[in-house]
Amino acid sequence: MWIPDWLSHYKKEQLSGDMIAGVIVAVVLVPQAMAYGMLAGLPAETALYSSVLPLILYAVFGSSRTLAVGPVGLMSLMTGATLLELPVSEPKEIIAAAHTLALLTGLILLSMRLANLGSIINFLSHPVISGFVSASAIIITISQLKHLFGLDIPRGLPTYETIILLSKEISHLNIATSIIGLSSLFILYGFKQPLSRVLERASCGELSQQIISKAGPLVAVSISTLAVYYLNLSKQQQVAIIGHIPAGLPTLILPNIEPSLLKALLPNAIMIALIGYLESVSIAKSMASQKRQKINSNKELVGLGFANMASAISSGYPVAGGFGRSMVNFTSGANTPFASIISALLVAISLACLTPLFFFLPKAALAAIIIIAVIALIDTHTLKHAWAYDRADAMSMLVTFVTVLLVNVESGIFAGIIMSIGLYLHRSSQPHIAIVGQLGDSEHYRNIERYKVQTEPNILALRVDENLYFANTNYLEDTIMQLVADNKEIDHVVLICNSISFIDSSALESLDVILYHLQKADIQLHLAEVKGPVMDKLKTTAFIKKIGADNIFISTHQAIQHLKQ
Amino acid sequence: MWIPDWLSHYKKEQLSGDMIAGVIVAVVLVPQAMAYGMLAGLPAETALYSSVLPLILYAVFGSSRTLAVGPVGLMSLMTGATLLELPVSEPKEIIAAAHTLALLTGLILLSMRLANLGSIINFLSHPVISGFVSASAIIITISQLKHLFGLDIPRGLPTYETIILLSKEISHLNIATSIIGLSSLFILYGFKQPLSRVLERASCGELSQQIISKAGPLVAVSISTLAVYYLNLSKQQQVAIIGHIPAGLPTLILPNIEPSLLKALLPNAIMIALIGYLESVSIAKSMASQKRQKINSNKELVGLGFANMASAISSGYPVAGGFGRSMVNFTSGANTPFASIISALLVAISLACLTPLFFFLPKAALAAIIIIAVIALIDTHTLKHAWAYDRADAMSMLVTFVTVLLVNVESGIFAGIIMSIGLYLHRSSQPHIAIVGQLGDSEHYRNIERYKVQTEPNILALRVDENLYFANTNYLEDTIMQLVADNKEIDHVVLICNSISFIDSSALESLDVILYHLQKADIQLHLAEVKGPVMDKLKTTAFIKKIGADNIFISTHQAIQHLKQ
Repeated sequence: MWIPDWLSHYKKEQLSGDMIAGVIVAVVLVPQAMAYGMLAGLPAETALYSSVLPLILYAVFGSSRTLAVGPVGLMSLMTGATLLELPVSEPKEIIAAAHTLALLTGLILLSMRLANLGSIINFLSHPVISGFVSASAIIITISQLKHLFGLDIPRGLPTYETIILLSKEISHLNIATSIIGLSSLFILYGFKQPLSRVLERASCGELSQQIISKAGPLVAVSISTLAVYYLNLSKQQQVAIIGHIPAGLPTLILPNIEPSLLKALLPNAIMIALIGYLESVSIAKSMASQKRQKINSNKELVGLGFANMASAISSGYPVAGGFGRSMVNFTSGANTPFASIISALLVAISLACLTPLFFFLPKAALAAIIIIAVIALIDTHTLKHAWAYDRADAMSMLVTFVTVLLVNVESGIFAGIIMSIGLYLHRSSQPHIAIVGQLGDSEHYRNIERYKVQTEPNILALRVDENLYFANTNYLEDTIMQLVADNKEIDHVVLICNSISFIDSSALESLDVILYHLQKADIQLHLAEVKGPVMDKLKTTAFIKKIGADNIFISTHQAIQHLKQ
Repeated sequence: MWIPDWLSHYKKEQLSGDMIAGVIVAVVLVPQAMAYGMLAGLPAETALYSSVLPLILYAVFGSSRTLAVGPVGLMSLMTGATLLELPVSEPKEIIAAAHTLALLTGLILLSMRLANLGSIINFLSHPVISGFVSASAIIITISQLKHLFGLDIPRGLPTYETIILLSKEISHLNIATSIIGLSSLFILYGFKQPLSRVLERASCGELSQQIISKAGPLVAVSISTLAVYYLNLSKQQQVAIIGHIPAGLPTLILPNIEPSLLKALLPNAIMIALIGYLESVSIAKSMASQKRQKINSNKELVGLGFANMASAISSGYPVAGGFGRSMVNFTSGANTPFASIISALLVAISLACLTPLFFFLPKAALAAIIIIAVIALIDTHTLKHAWAYDRADAMSMLVTFVTVLLVNVESGIFAGIIMSIGLYLHRSSQPHIAIVGQLGDSEHYRNIERYKVQTEPNILALRVDENLYFANTNYLEDTIMQLVADNKEIDHVVLICNSISFIDSSALESLDVILYHLQKADIQLHLAEVKGPVMDKLKTTAFIKKIGADNIFISTHQAIQHLKQ
């Protein structure tokens, strides 16, 4: 049998950290999973089922040691939106479709591994991710306000319509629900920030500090459940509660693989798989780097792929690595994925024995858990930095943000990718071209606009700061011709190629044209500092014969010295 | 009144060249225009109307001195396809829609000028253009075979269906039509190649040589018309003829601007405008460079925009600069756009007086004119070169070619653009990263895999041959970390930035992460040869404080010498 690396090298001293982290994560996971289930429009048990087998499979196949897999906010949001679009209304069918969605997500992740497509996420730039995450956090928060205040607003409306309805309906809020919701928010926030500081100052043991500070969700859930139960709020005040959760472990099933259902789910499944993968890898990387461990993105695809397959066959819905819980796991001292196995076992025990306790759990408390979890993801910091450093990046971020907010997640990400790639192409289509001169008596040649340098009146030395490819060849041609036309003294043009890593065939044709025009005007073209791989390819072309091997120099200095004589 | 530059500086000695070229182009233009009209599924007069006013408007507003504007093959093909898609079948309505299409094309070109979008064509790489032109030439040729052989095959079928039908129907060919068609092909080919050589050898005057060698279409049209007329082939042998063309100048009209029609035409109009602009600019540029003149792509947009508007209001259809006729104009000695004005006047005279002569003109002769014109555009040369030089470019070309052929022009161009941009991004997402060492005692540092160079065991000097942006930051991070992990002796990493022209905010974050990881491992990161514009932006960031100004060197040599001590 195949044994994961961490298990075969397991050390005794890793156990206590894993045990403690496993327990703490479970305490956070149970209420959070139910909350995310609500966000996806699925019953609490579906979300809890997604929190057992997937964790174990990821522990065996994944590459991160501390990633906490399970239901997460973004994927729950996207799953909810996907299920709402389906032409089914029977709750049973909707739940069955969620299992199928997890199956597809798993299959897509595994296919990406087989097709070696892991690097596809490189095309999601940080600003796009940040814009998307911030907007999603806002959407999720707004979607939970109705639960927080006990308002009756349909799911799946565009965010602005939800806001309008909320502002209209706010006067009909359910007072008991609102009190529960706001107190839960208060408790959660208290445990998150002020309590940690109090505990630190009280210099209580680090372990108890860890456990106490992570108990916020448990406390909020317990207090609000007790309040509903003893004050009979669900009957007397119509406070919405979770209700009956069937007791018992997840049943293994074969998901529905009707072709029409698969076809309807596929586009969103691709997006869910990509986002889940992206989120998980970013979290895993940031944790691994703090411990000088490495994340293998191919192994991540396999781990997440199997985790989703496991979710599908154990009556769950799509899962990924969650930011909040992973951080809890990491900071609580998890050393290996064994911590996740412990969390999974504890969730399983809850499912077997504790579900009656959740009957009176008010939805408002779960809404508060979601809101506190996602509101931390709203990221104005990146926008501020991007705005100061690179306006184009800031624009990509804003476009993604606004599109996610006004249209949907998929369009937003798509718009962001198109925008960031478009801006990059635009930039590289108008490369920086510097006229350079000799720096003192050195062998260095620098931009005449930035340094005091010497130039020769009859030599134009140009450095092109970009690869030459179809989108910028016209620009290069125009720039050189303009410079030559403006200065009649020039006999020699030296093209410094140290920034040029490839020349595509459009650019090669363009160089041919430039050479031809310059020769017609009695100007000789020279190349300097051509890189090895570029030269290898040029050698096979007719261009190199036309320009003449004598006119290619290893350094700019050599070229200029030679031409001066 | 505004007077174009060429007119205000008109010299007497330019007149004879302009007159001769104007006449020769008109001789070519009249039959060619009727042929292209047939290709677009429009009556001959519509195409002739497109050959009067547009030429004059382009002469006034365009920037090329020798571009011959009028109906062209590609745009006729695209116009024909567009009109076939419309839900109208009444010939009058179809013709009216062609005027509207010209109006839209003109408006789009003028809007591109206003929005400064002229550079958009830079994103069409040479291989994509070449693939598209070759495929279109094949489509056009195949579409004309039915006229050449007098077969009854519906228009607008996919090319492969046309081929199947042709092979089925070929046994029913019209013998008289086929004889006319093939003889016309023979005459045209003879005038194009062998005759020129004969005339050259006969050393007859250059002018008469010019005129005679360009008279192919006129001769083919005259002989075939006379044959049809005297042998009564149209009645007795059912040879298809042009028939009645109303005599008289184009009537000025207001095109139909019904919103539903505009909406239906818009997507194709955008593509027609882009292709027309692209074709015209490439032709104009190649001619201008031979005479050391300049093409202003903004003025081109204006010139072509007004030409199309003129076509719209004078009962024409979309026009552009044609390759063949422009070459005729250029080689016949046209000096200024006055040549085009003469051509336009001669077409107008033909319309006023000569239309009865075209009555018996057989369609097979026109088909032969089209075939000879476009077959020269099939370009295997570029494919061969691209294949040898850059497999990726060859692939873009093939994908464009096959998609144009099997699907349609728009999809083909779209696929080609996506493919060429995708390949470029893929390339730049895995940049060449070279470990460099000192070349002898020089100040030059070169790739250790290509040169005999000296390296220091504790210094890793890396040159990244690409801008740093979101798509390649992970690759850079992974590469550096791998190199450092593999070699425990390393204390210093020098990142040589002479190929880096910009660092976007994703890459900046990545550098931060790299710096952090290296520092944790007691390795110092240094930068060398950072370019001015990059340094300016870095100076505003926190990164520069973290790395320390002492660790940034103007040259690699300086960095290595300093670290050696």
